[in-house]
Amino acid sequence: MARTHTYLINGSFDHTISPFDRGFAYGDGVFRTLVMRHGLPENWPLHYQKLVADCATINIVCPSVELLMSDLQQLFLLDETAVAKIIITRGEGNRGYTPPAITAPMRVVTKSAMPQYPKERFSEGVNLHICETRLAVQPLLAGVKHLNRLENVLARMEWNEQTIADGILLDTGNNVIECTAANIFVRFDDMLITPSLTECGVAGITRQRIIDLAHTIPLKIVIETFNLKKLFSADEVIICNSLYGAYQVKTIQGKAIKTGALAANIRKALKA
Amino acid sequence: MARTHTYLINGSFDHTISPFDRGFAYGDGVFRTLVMRHGLPENWPLHYQKLVADCATINIVCPSVELLMSDLQQLFLLDETAVAKIIITRGEGNRGYTPPAITAPMRVVTKSAMPQYPKERFSEGVNLHICETRLAVQPLLAGVKHLNRLENVLARMEWNEQTIADGILLDTGNNVIECTAANIFVRFDDMLITPSLTECGVAGITRQRIIDLAHTIPLKIVIETFNLKKLFSADEVIICNSLYGAYQVKTIQGKAIKTGALAANIRKALKA
Repeated sequence: MARTHTYLINGSFDHTISPFDRGFAYGDGVFRTLVMRHGLPENWPLHYQKLVADCATINIVCPSVELLMSDLQQLFLLDETAVAKIIITRGEGNRGYTPPAITAPMRVVTKSAMPQYPKERFSEGVNLHICETRLAVQPLLAGVKHLNRLENVLARMEWNEQTIADGILLDTGNNVIECTAANIFVRFDDMLITPSLTECGVAGITRQRIIDLAHTIPLKIVIETFNLKKLFSADEVIICNSLYGAYQVKTIQGKAIKTGALAANIRKALKA
Repeated sequence: MARTHTYLINGSFDHTISPFDRGFAYGDGVFRTLVMRHGLPENWPLHYQKLVADCATINIVCPSVELLMSDLQQLFLLDETAVAKIIITRGEGNRGYTPPAITAPMRVVTKSAMPQYPKERFSEGVNLHICETRLAVQPLLAGVKHLNRLENVLARMEWNEQTIADGILLDTGNNVIECTAANIFVRFDDMLITPSLTECGVAGITRQRIIDLAHTIPLKIVIETFNLKKLFSADEVIICNSLYGAYQVKTIQGKAIKTGALAANIRKALKA
């Protein structure tokens, strides 16, 4: 029965989203995207921990791990590999920004096909665009995967070429921050640098996993702001997310950059 | 029959919002809030023009005026005064930020009760909070009433007092921009100043109407950036939106400011 359903709202196949839901009205919520395999969510402790933290940042009480696990098990089959998206909103409210005194958060779980990534992205690396769209600086929401994603939408509309895997997002101060659907790391000798996300950007859990496992490669982790000039001078560049793991970057805006085995090593470490 | 319904989706009382709608997933859409009286939307030409312009900014084709008028007439009765909210989203898409090649925008019209504003807000003026939440600078989306409103939500959560009508929002550079649900004007002698909204903020249609009618008061309009110090030294301060028109501001963060007949004069001019 679950096979025919692509989503579940508050644990039910029959519920619908109200136009008065604050997630719809204001983007007043957060989300996670993760791989479901053999009926289990990959890297679940990190995903759930991040979901709780992101909810807390905007003062939403995150549904319990039991409820979300039950949702995932209702929607996904043991024999399928697919993408789960979990969306938590503040729930319904009256018109206007004031949240209701008592809120009932809404949880939505959707199922999508696992993307069929071209094999050469893993074997040869990927090309990146540099987005004209800049990320605004908003420390209150920096790092949070919330539902206000118009900047990503505008940025993603900048290119149509299938040969471009993602686009690099700079902030309004022209610092390199991330890609539209990935985090970014650059290597200089034995240092692995990833941008600080205290002003803007989304701190993905694969970024966190790479930070945590870098010493096993072995590389030293540095979290700091850098610009495009530094990016182009890196020994290697990789991008990462929860679906494909890590990609080696071979060109940025058509310009070749140095490549090596970093993405392959990181993918191996992520799977270990 | 319409009396029992509070919303209409794509012209139907039976349609629902999909979790794959990009308005829900990303806040990928825009909206308007307006007063319906005797079955007619107040200041409709300006609202529709702004809706079309805001849609265009994020590359959504706005539904026709005929469709929206038909929706409003289905949902609102001739004998009721109520608040209409029109939401236009990019419509459904696959998972991921890439918009579908062919999009079918979704239109949602909701009905809410007209707020019962305390009479003394009109007779005596209102108190404003100064929000700690800052507006991020994003010229690509500045002025647009889009569905990415988490900043407004966070700002509105800063106070609970019924005696505070709204909160002043500054940008990350500490310029005065607007209130959470209103635009702001300050008077110095015969000059009426309202903040430039080219970096952030929402350019409401009541703000536009006041800009257009200021010469009848008579006042000279100046659109420029100013800070809190200048705000506190103003001869008068008013805030405005499509529902209540204009309020005289009597205190900001508990500090009395100069008052006069500006809001009353503007309300009169808005009704003329």
